[in-house]
Amino acid sequence: MISIPSTGSAERVLISELPACADRPVSVEGWLHRRRTLKTVTFLVLRDRTGLVQAVLREPHASALEHLTEESVLRVSGIVKANRQAPGGIELIEPHVAVLSGSTEPAPFDLYRPTVPATLPTILDHSPVTLRHPRLRAPHVIAAASVAGYRAALDGLGFTEIHTPKIVGSSTESGANVFEVDYFGTRAYLAQSPQFFKQMMVGVFERVYETGPVFRAEPSDTARHLAQYTSLDAELGFIDDHRDVMEVLREAVDGMLSAVRERAQEECELLGARLPEVPARIPEIHFAQAQELLAAHTAQDPRGEPDLAPAHERWLCEWAAREHGSEFLFVTGYPMRKRPFYTHAEPGRPEYSNSFDLLFRGLEIVTGGQRLHKYEDYVAALAERGEGVEAYEGYLQAFRRGMPPHGGFAMGLERWVARLVGAENVRLATLFPRDITRLSP
Amino acid sequence: MISIPSTGSAERVLISELPACADRPVSVEGWLHRRRTLKTVTFLVLRDRTGLVQAVLREPHASALEHLTEESVLRVSGIVKANRQAPGGIELIEPHVAVLSGSTEPAPFDLYRPTVPATLPTILDHSPVTLRHPRLRAPHVIAAASVAGYRAALDGLGFTEIHTPKIVGSSTESGANVFEVDYFGTRAYLAQSPQFFKQMMVGVFERVYETGPVFRAEPSDTARHLAQYTSLDAELGFIDDHRDVMEVLREAVDGMLSAVRERAQEECELLGARLPEVPARIPEIHFAQAQELLAAHTAQDPRGEPDLAPAHERWLCEWAAREHGSEFLFVTGYPMRKRPFYTHAEPGRPEYSNSFDLLFRGLEIVTGGQRLHKYEDYVAALAERGEGVEAYEGYLQAFRRGMPPHGGFAMGLERWVARLVGAENVRLATLFPRDITRLSP
Repeated sequence: MISIPSTGSAERVLISELPACADRPVSVEGWLHRRRTLKTVTFLVLRDRTGLVQAVLREPHASALEHLTEESVLRVSGIVKANRQAPGGIELIEPHVAVLSGSTEPAPFDLYRPTVPATLPTILDHSPVTLRHPRLRAPHVIAAASVAGYRAALDGLGFTEIHTPKIVGSSTESGANVFEVDYFGTRAYLAQSPQFFKQMMVGVFERVYETGPVFRAEPSDTARHLAQYTSLDAELGFIDDHRDVMEVLREAVDGMLSAVRERAQEECELLGARLPEVPARIPEIHFAQAQELLAAHTAQDPRGEPDLAPAHERWLCEWAAREHGSEFLFVTGYPMRKRPFYTHAEPGRPEYSNSFDLLFRGLEIVTGGQRLHKYEDYVAALAERGEGVEAYEGYLQAFRRGMPPHGGFAMGLERWVARLVGAENVRLATLFPRDITRLSP
Repeated sequence: MISIPSTGSAERVLISELPACADRPVSVEGWLHRRRTLKTVTFLVLRDRTGLVQAVLREPHASALEHLTEESVLRVSGIVKANRQAPGGIELIEPHVAVLSGSTEPAPFDLYRPTVPATLPTILDHSPVTLRHPRLRAPHVIAAASVAGYRAALDGLGFTEIHTPKIVGSSTESGANVFEVDYFGTRAYLAQSPQFFKQMMVGVFERVYETGPVFRAEPSDTARHLAQYTSLDAELGFIDDHRDVMEVLREAVDGMLSAVRERAQEECELLGARLPEVPARIPEIHFAQAQELLAAHTAQDPRGEPDLAPAHERWLCEWAAREHGSEFLFVTGYPMRKRPFYTHAEPGRPEYSNSFDLLFRGLEIVTGGQRLHKYEDYVAALAERGEGVEAYEGYLQAFRRGMPPHGGFAMGLERWVARLVGAENVRLATLFPRDITRLSP
């Protein structure tokens, strides 16, 4: 009943393909997800990347497999039989079981239970194993679909994918919270964003995107901050203002959701993830007007503050849902004093900017805006902050050779997925999170 | 003749769309690629992301635009006219020129000349500008197409994309040539590859890939080494041996070339890049047999050496072209002593491994193979190298909970593109190369 598999054995069939194989002999391969021993019969539930199937063992074969532990890797050969009582309506009978690889230690918790009976640290300490739980695995399938949809949408809009340096020579872009690297004896830094690179590449490709890691030495241990996350960045030239950027972002989000519907439907169902509609035009509200609303309808008066508090973002999202029937809301025009030096001011109201945040289900998931495009504007903007141009020479040289009006945005992939699936901690949407206390596995 | 553009101006038409607009008024936007002043007429050649077009100016309008420098960003409105003598067979007449953004300093060399009259350091120091030269830009369009084709091929084979940490807690994977990071006061390292992560994820998704940056503190300043490059990684479970991995790699390379043909044909033509055929079965030769061939046919006798010298790789590629009509060659079975500890030995010949390199046009572009999948084999392999399991606990925990036979590969994107376009230095296939002397722009 147990054998060492030989090379060149019968072609493997995926579990999802079994319904088409009724009454035929097949071999499936996967992990022993669960063994259930009843009085006269033992069920082995096998898991592969496409699903679950049970194999039905009777005596004396069942006893011969008593030592098999869950998570062992098996090849099970048997006859496919329809059985309406079996999970998925199908089962394997007269199975022949070969052990490809044993499991010598139980998982930290039973991976076959529908819910996850473990704390976050246990889940993360053992992620190579706990991610095998269908509920913990699902967000990452949704992440992969989201990124594929993002790229497809931007490819369709004439964007070019770029790969930019993650080690940079100066920490100038935002100063705080950078990781230092020993670069052949020189001090260097991990890039907090591809901002400068994607802008420079507007001069080359007009429209670019990157989907890669960014690094923040974030000292606060919150449910939504990571030391490394995947940033979905885009930048485009020849815009009128930030609204052209917002339109492209709308297309990108729509493409992401289409891909999730197409490629991760089962995972969404498993997690009960409700996918939002993207309105043909996402409602928008100017920062100043948002503050007026908040002052009129909430206990606090935020006017004079340069940014929105988390509670304000939540309130505005509820307002957008109520007033506009949208789970997405653009807040535009954030005050210049809270935005980076390359931000383009609002024409006629220079204390405000041509920038935006996209709020989704109570949280900011994207930041973007129009950038300065004239060299002299950069010189002035840096001077106003008491900075010289020297540290920025590599970047600013592009602006002395003609740069079109441009803008862009950045979305945190893990935050997006966490919102989509309703994960209370962004770490549950990150394969191997890095934070102030966690550097492994 | 010159005006400040107003928002809401006529819709921009891309230069590639002009042939369909004959005799109609249009607006195009782009960079002043070149100005050619003849006796009675001035040509402005405009460049956008889709190509070049000339606008024909006559007096007195030409004189009014004399101050315009190349690389200025313009909107040119005019009538599209077919003219067989014009480049591309089309030109804009009666043009109206608006300056979106001026150029205040000439590029380091004339970007309109067909060849690049500059040294590599000049090209790289000014890459935000020099990459606008069509010949210097083209490799990156080919790179983007290659990565898209890679992902499409693997998506089609049931792979899941993953995003893994680039900051790791130990330098154990290969020891030398790692960059150190100050991680909240602890010493950490930049990942040299996603090797451990992709293997662990075989336990979750069976088939995974990643397209992201990897870091090597490479102290040698050669034409083919970088401190950061883009690694196209894949790993798959339920294999018989390394040949199953080689088959997937063949599909991936074929998909990359299809995408390059489809999405970067013009760039290939511009660079005279000849795209190779991928044979239905890429020829392969065992390392031992390759050494016999080299001993018999070249001046040196390499037998006893644990690896192939660059000259040997070149000779073997010539041999494969001659004997098998293939520009690709798999060399399999590299000696275990030169391969990392997770390498699976060749059954029956334990001094050799179930590994491979893919050679292309004289150079190794991919390394891969079958990995160990049993926990006890890892313990033994590490003991043999005098190492304990402690530093590997985060990784090895996966192998105590059932891991299928698996293997994978890694391809350097920049090296692939350099080979494809015949670039003598890999830096010409890298947007902003990082090396022992270069950290900016």
